[in-house]
Amino acid sequence: MQSQGKERGSVNQQGVHKEGLLYEGKAKKVYTTGDPKRLWVEYKDDATAFNGEKKGTIRGKGRLNNLISAALFTYLTRQGVANHFERLLSDHEQLVRQVSILPVEVVVRNMAAGSMAKRLGLEEGRKLSRPVVEFYYKKDELGDPLINEDHIDVLGLARPEQVGQMKSVALKVNRLLSRYFAERDLILVDFKLEFGLTAEGQLLLADEISPDTCRLWDSQTQEKLDKDRFRRDLGGVLEAYQEILNRVGGEQNV
Amino acid sequence: MQSQGKERGSVNQQGVHKEGLLYEGKAKKVYTTGDPKRLWVEYKDDATAFNGEKKGTIRGKGRLNNLISAALFTYLTRQGVANHFERLLSDHEQLVRQVSILPVEVVVRNMAAGSMAKRLGLEEGRKLSRPVVEFYYKKDELGDPLINEDHIDVLGLARPEQVGQMKSVALKVNRLLSRYFAERDLILVDFKLEFGLTAEGQLLLADEISPDTCRLWDSQTQEKLDKDRFRRDLGGVLEAYQEILNRVGGEQNV
Ligand SMILES: Nc1ncnc2c1ncn2[C@@H]1O[C@H](COP(=O)(O)OP(=O)(O)OP(=O)(O)O)[C@@H](O)[C@H]1O
Ligand SMILES: Nc1ncnc2c1ncn2[C@@H]1O[C@H](COP(=O)(O)OP(=O)(O)OP(=O)(O)O)[C@@H](O)[C@H]1O
Ligand SMILES: [Mg+2]
Ligand SMILES: [Mg+2]
Repeated sequence: MQSQGKERGSVNQQGVHKEGLLYEGKAKKVYTTGDPKRLWVEYKDDATAFNGEKKGTIRGKGRLNNLISAALFTYLTRQGVANHFERLLSDHEQLVRQVSILPVEVVVRNMAAGSMAKRLGLEEGRKLSRPVVEFYYKKDELGDPLINEDHIDVLGLARPEQVGQMKSVALKVNRLLSRYFAERDLILVDFKLEFGLTAEGQLLLADEISPDTCRLWDSQTQEKLDKDRFRRDLGGVLEAYQEILNRVGGEQNV
Repeated sequence: MQSQGKERGSVNQQGVHKEGLLYEGKAKKVYTTGDPKRLWVEYKDDATAFNGEKKGTIRGKGRLNNLISAALFTYLTRQGVANHFERLLSDHEQLVRQVSILPVEVVVRNMAAGSMAKRLGLEEGRKLSRPVVEFYYKKDELGDPLINEDHIDVLGLARPEQVGQMKSVALKVNRLLSRYFAERDLILVDFKLEFGLTAEGQLLLADEISPDTCRLWDSQTQEKLDKDRFRRDLGGVLEAYQEILNRVGGEQNV
């Protein structure tokens, strides 16, 4: 009885412990914990772009993305957007709900930039008449190709009602974060989301929301404060990410 | 009075006349006629693939595609699918309604093949659990990229209700032609459609439906009887197209 109580207590309070490495991605390491419903996520300092072709290390990036992601997920939770974030574990680690990630990346765009500007021959920064939602097949070997809802269906990547839900949550996140960033003198140009299913089948927003996954421009100067500084060798990557953290006030959380 | 009557008569009967070249594409030449609502289409013997990178001439292809297209459009008209075809003018020419073509190619697929097989890592010939509809931006400079309905909307390529209409007509054409070809021992693997608007704003199926724009496999032998013979240097291109014409019985029309 006593030992059982102790074990429970150590899980329910702060005493979550890191178990085995579940998987290591390009930006994060994911560990199991004593609790099958929770994962321990460690944000790394590795930077990659163009499907892993370009690589680098940016000391301090893991900490900044961890804190920024935590601040944004916390804001979204308050606004009623169900997501995987539970709490910070350290300045570069956080505890999240375990989900099985749907192999679909959901991108929302307010302005043409990056691959969309190139694909459609639009100049970067052109304002779109309304937000555009895109789905990409999360499959590195294929270079994460653009897909449509019919492809998602025949590949069995998600059920049609889940696709509809991802789309409407993505558009809600866009409305919320566009305003949130605008209040901090930032333009949310575009961003990528990932979703997953809990063991009970609940769809949760997951992964990360950071300058690695959003394009963020200073409203006054149009300066890029995101991963494009790394992709395009603009320099000052860490300073840009630190500026985002300052503006979202995430430093105070740890 | 008399001369007016004569002029009307020469347009309304067989006496349509070819005027200036309106545009020359990779596969067809399009001429104006005395009648602003009608165009004179001449099917050429030129063959191109991979966005014009591969070129050739296949003597007799223009005639075969003209007759096959005429037979298929005639069948679709009988089945209630509004389209641009009016009548044959010669073995390699046809009269069509003038439309302004929407810059969107609509592809329907029953099996994975070609760019879809490559893009999604599927083996060619894999049966899809249901037909897949894809939209491509008709823009040679960009290599006709895959797009979704949001892209069509923000680029202003077509109105959302027109997109819905194109999709449902494309699926109806797929049902009709899949059965039509099956009765002729042919598998309709996939095909590309183009649509246009008349001056009055009516949406019409246009362009061509031929072995240049459909993948057609013999039901018994799986032999490819379409443009892939040219794309992949399989030989026997003209013989394959002639075989399609024989099976659709289009020879008797001219
Ligand atoms: N709550 C979660 N539960 C389970 N897995 C998660 C959760 N949140 C994120 N992940 C997954 O953790 C993995 C590691 O993240 P990371 O960003 O490093 O991956 P990545 O290298 O970008 O690879 P990928 O191309 O799969 O996104 C990713 O596959 C991500 O989808
Ligand atoms: N009824 C019609 N009215 C007006 N234009 C038409 C009609 N039917 C087809 N066309 C257009 O005629 C042009 C010539 O046809 P062709 O197949 O040779 O073009 P193409 O080289 O394939 O070029 P594209 O990439 O524009 O299709 C095309 O732009 C086609 O869309
Ligand atoms: Mg990632
Ligand atoms: Mg053509």
